[in-house]
Amino acid sequence: MTEFYPPSPPPGHVVLLGQVSPLPLDCGSSLGPYPLAYSSYGTLNADRSNVVLITHALTGDQVVAGSHPVTKRPGWWERMVGPGRIIDTDAYFVLCVNVLGGCMGSAGPSAINPATNTVWGADFPFLTIADMVRAQAELLDHLGIDTLFMAVGGSMGGMQVLQWVRDYPQRVFAGAALATAARHSPQQIGLHSIGRRAILSDPDWQEGRYHGTGRSPTKGLEVARMLAHLSYRAPGELDRRFGRGLQDRTQPAYGLEPDYQVESYLAYHGRRFVERFDPASYVVITKAMDYFDLAPDGDLASRFKGTRTRMFLGSYETDWLYPPEQTNELADAFRTAGLPVFDRCYEATFGHDSFLLDIPAFDADFAQFIKACAQERGLPV
Amino acid sequence: MTEFYPPSPPPGHVVLLGQVSPLPLDCGSSLGPYPLAYSSYGTLNADRSNVVLITHALTGDQVVAGSHPVTKRPGWWERMVGPGRIIDTDAYFVLCVNVLGGCMGSAGPSAINPATNTVWGADFPFLTIADMVRAQAELLDHLGIDTLFMAVGGSMGGMQVLQWVRDYPQRVFAGAALATAARHSPQQIGLHSIGRRAILSDPDWQEGRYHGTGRSPTKGLEVARMLAHLSYRAPGELDRRFGRGLQDRTQPAYGLEPDYQVESYLAYHGRRFVERFDPASYVVITKAMDYFDLAPDGDLASRFKGTRTRMFLGSYETDWLYPPEQTNELADAFRTAGLPVFDRCYEATFGHDSFLLDIPAFDADFAQFIKACAQERGLPV
Repeated sequence: MTEFYPPSPPPGHVVLLGQVSPLPLDCGSSLGPYPLAYSSYGTLNADRSNVVLITHALTGDQVVAGSHPVTKRPGWWERMVGPGRIIDTDAYFVLCVNVLGGCMGSAGPSAINPATNTVWGADFPFLTIADMVRAQAELLDHLGIDTLFMAVGGSMGGMQVLQWVRDYPQRVFAGAALATAARHSPQQIGLHSIGRRAILSDPDWQEGRYHGTGRSPTKGLEVARMLAHLSYRAPGELDRRFGRGLQDRTQPAYGLEPDYQVESYLAYHGRRFVERFDPASYVVITKAMDYFDLAPDGDLASRFKGTRTRMFLGSYETDWLYPPEQTNELADAFRTAGLPVFDRCYEATFGHDSFLLDIPAFDADFAQFIKACAQERGLPV
Repeated sequence: MTEFYPPSPPPGHVVLLGQVSPLPLDCGSSLGPYPLAYSSYGTLNADRSNVVLITHALTGDQVVAGSHPVTKRPGWWERMVGPGRIIDTDAYFVLCVNVLGGCMGSAGPSAINPATNTVWGADFPFLTIADMVRAQAELLDHLGIDTLFMAVGGSMGGMQVLQWVRDYPQRVFAGAALATAARHSPQQIGLHSIGRRAILSDPDWQEGRYHGTGRSPTKGLEVARMLAHLSYRAPGELDRRFGRGLQDRTQPAYGLEPDYQVESYLAYHGRRFVERFDPASYVVITKAMDYFDLAPDGDLASRFKGTRTRMFLGSYETDWLYPPEQTNELADAFRTAGLPVFDRCYEATFGHDSFLLDIPAFDADFAQFIKACAQERGLPV
């Protein structure tokens, strides 16, 4: 199989939104009707006050817990979400939405446009994080949910949390944004731009109209993923894990093949990724991240004046992609704006991916935060 | 023009070496006869004691000073080399050799193999830094030069300096290695591996046999160069220089084109690079860097026991690609081995590229170092 299609049916639920009035987009066009796919865990309580929205990162999806029907692996935050876990599905109703532009059932380049019954492909519009969040708000309206108890996510998931708090401050009781930033920096944009260039340089890209042709720019996407994966890990961790170890040999091969374990590791992650992700989704979503800037005039605090959302901000000391300084800037702005903020930079060896992994100090802090917020909200703890 | 060929004639001089006995290579094969291209500046003194060998980085070449005949720009270390400059061509005889595997006249994939009178292409062997240095030593033999007064270079140039001091300690009076490392780390290998993957994924690569076909994997090489270029710069510098500035517009275009200045900047450097560099050379030379490890058993100091070469080591605080810790490790090893060492981490905003740029504190230190070495060597200062 050389081409990615979303699984049919996609994991969880799919609703068709934007049927009455289309979703307005920041690019100036609109979208509707459009499918939005999501998973839910736990039970909505009577007054609909126990909703935790978990927002996923660039290459995540709505399968935050349980077994993923495509990859057959555990959901991406399985360790955090479930009965008795920190995000306790015995207490909370957990929602996770495949972002607009994604490829796991929500409207995106590889999805079928219900208006035309053909694949969106290159006609799918370019989005912003605000557009993604606007679609999630429409989903909440659809589900009859007024307010989120908490929105939580890391990396691009953290951007969505911040956008929620900026655009719908009354609808978010508490927010947790991990390993993220108030705006994408030139280095972050540059890394994405290189990944997109690899995809667009692949002749199988076919100007974005490759869906249904039997050829998909998977080679370009593999390069993009290898780069992204390397940027998610810390050099010290790679040193300890791989060093200069050779792959399946005792001497370098002095040829074109990868010689070192770290090369095979990156290549493996590239190969595995193209089995579950659509190249055009990667282009659209990375662009949305690059557009992200909560306060283009630099006055971040003013965007949050009067907001009472309780905020948790976590960063990780070896994360060179979303360095702790970017989170510190957010914490300063929230404090200036008068929001209650807990923030901490965690000792963690895994670089940017630390937000996904088991960092006991984070787990303890976050468990305490969610418990304190639940008490304030009058939810059983 | 879609295909790179070395200029004919290449800049400077070309000698044909390995005619009597071929150059042994670390991969087990050998090379000969093989051309080696170099530039020289200044005049060799009567006792041949005033030779400064400047070793170039991955994408550099022998045109260290003066006007480059291909790019029409100044040589890559023009500010350091010339009459009255810090490496004073009124006092020193400066040599700079296009590395073996390069594409500016020395034997490499895009060069003509004198034994067959056809382009080497995919038959060109994979090399190590030690092979490059062995060829340079043959050039010195050919020129009747026994000892280098100094070997100096940054990044891959620094690796060559270190290799010179390890393999020919009696032939190097002083050495200066900037922004470099004793071994390539997994992150450094990973970045190269991604760049090579982009080149090898380009259908115009044609299994390395593209020379003379009219098609060359320039798109892949552009991606590789964009990534390399980004890795050479510091995020803070990019922030100050570009911020989130848009290119030629006031609003994002919400399309496939680059929106931000940093994207255009990287694309520009990608485009410019393919006009002067051969993709297969890029593959061979990055592999040589990845193989670099002065002491696979970890005992770096033992490799330099008894060596009396005076060493200068410089690193740059914003260089995340070759971080100062790697230079500190070298300094510690040299001190343990008893070599006289000056080392310093310079305040510099430009990341890895700082070694090429105007850092006054470095200039002052290096001028003092070369003067002190000249005095010890009995050269006029």
